Amino acid sequence: MITQKLISEIRRKKSFLCIGLDVDLNKIPKQLLEDEDPIFSFNKAIIDATHHLAVAYKPNTAFYEAYGINGWKSLQKTIEYLNENHPEIFTIADAKRGDIGNTSSMYAHAFFNDLGFDSVTVAPYMGKDSVEPFLAFKDKHTILLALTSNEGAFDFQTRKIASEEVYKTVLSTSKNWKNAKNLMYVVGATKAAYFSEIRKIVPDSFLLVPGIGAQGGNLAEVCKFGMNENVGLLVNSSRGILYASNGSDFAEAARKEAKNLQQQMESILHAV
Amino acid sequence: MITQKLISEIRRKKSFLCIGLDVDLNKIPKQLLEDEDPIFSFNKAIIDATHHLAVAYKPNTAFYEAYGINGWKSLQKTIEYLNENHPEIFTIADAKRGDIGNTSSMYAHAFFNDLGFDSVTVAPYMGKDSVEPFLAFKDKHTILLALTSNEGAFDFQTRKIASEEVYKTVLSTSKNWKNAKNLMYVVGATKAAYFSEIRKIVPDSFLLVPGIGAQGGNLAEVCKFGMNENVGLLVNSSRGILYASNGSDFAEAARKEAKNLQQQMESILHAV
Repeated sequence: MITQKLISEIRRKKSFLCIGLDVDLNKIPKQLLEDEDPIFSFNKAIIDATHHLAVAYKPNTAFYEAYGINGWKSLQKTIEYLNENHPEIFTIADAKRGDIGNTSSMYAHAFFNDLGFDSVTVAPYMGKDSVEPFLAFKDKHTILLALTSNEGAFDFQTRKIASEEVYKTVLSTSKNWKNAKNLMYVVGATKAAYFSEIRKIVPDSFLLVPGIGAQGGNLAEVCKFGMNENVGLLVNSSRGILYASNGSDFAEAARKEAKNLQQQMESILHAV
Repeated sequence: MITQKLISEIRRKKSFLCIGLDVDLNKIPKQLLEDEDPIFSFNKAIIDATHHLAVAYKPNTAFYEAYGINGWKSLQKTIEYLNENHPEIFTIADAKRGDIGNTSSMYAHAFFNDLGFDSVTVAPYMGKDSVEPFLAFKDKHTILLALTSNEGAFDFQTRKIASEEVYKTVLSTSKNWKNAKNLMYVVGATKAAYFSEIRKIVPDSFLLVPGIGAQGGNLAEVCKFGMNENVGLLVNSSRGILYASNGSDFAEAARKEAKNLQQQMESILHAV
């Protein structure tokens, strides 16, 4: 998907909501466990209930790999369902990959060609030649971990390289990589105070923002410091939406939670 | 596998060779492509031909994910074959994962419990709480990326946090994480000059060393600066062994390449 299409969908839906499909079989409604593929059944119901409120879905690959081959099948069915029924949706494989060049090429092939995702999250630690194989894919996006939402972000990311924090060095260095126009960045909502610093370095890039809800991030704060003229934000919620109810009304409860976030987004978009 | 078992296998086999199972269908002998599972057939033949020369095997998950569900099945069959027939072999899922706590737990479950690997490679960028869920598994090992073998390692890893290189900060910080005894580190063979610095920080840890062969690393140099009294090294070769021949003699050619490396290791072990 080209960036302009994503921007126009955000405008059309008045939403920059990304829904994380982090499916835990221990948390989904018990009656779904009798289905042939409970994870896909759950995802399909969540997507059917929320697709008009969200512009992106983000399956986290860990939650599929944890169920082995069956999990991988569920992931494949989920992305196929999205691509066939909602081609306007921006899809993110939250995989946090990154390896030497020939290996990164294999990952890029797996997520972009084989599965058909629009984007994949990538860890920057191995540098330029570990990320450029992802960037080489036309109309596909690479979402680089910059400043993550967890406590461990303070272990390395906010430490200083010479006099500059590591995450800033990641941002400024990656801007010079080949096909850098295909880059987006992960910036945690729990780090709202950092967004204005980040916007000084990457004013135009889209930021994928986890950490709203369960992790305690604040939507208004994120928008205040992180939004640009194309919105430039995809704000993710996973557990808060998926597990709003564990009864048979789970999809309706998910829709309500998504609607609640979308309406907050709509008023923020209206105000700016 | 407990570390002491790995050390005794290194002594017994006079080898610290790790063979990377990075299987590319474009590179394996054509006649295998008619098999039901060519990747597993290839791996089985390589393992049968080399298991007496190597102490570890390291499938790189990218090469399996690139073939979707069939690839995942091949990975599962490969680790099952190793665990059933060669329980003395140390197995490494070269997956380079790392995410927020609940997600890292899912990955750890996938690789340690579901697939049954002895260890997994993990990227440090997200810090302590992204790695500790892996470390929590008893008798399982977490191999943290410290200084990787690729050119991009110079983008961030060798930059300085205050006055210390980032990879050194990763080493020294990770030593204080809970269950740090389960840590090993990835250090590229192409960075041999750095090994003595690394040994000042982590004298006792095992180092997984990629980059011999195709990437240009030198075994003698690595051993000179990186070996400790328990050897403390697992030196990996992937392409150099796997694709020594693409004819029907591929397994025999792989055995010869493995034997060549093992004999170099034996004379180094004999000399020290």
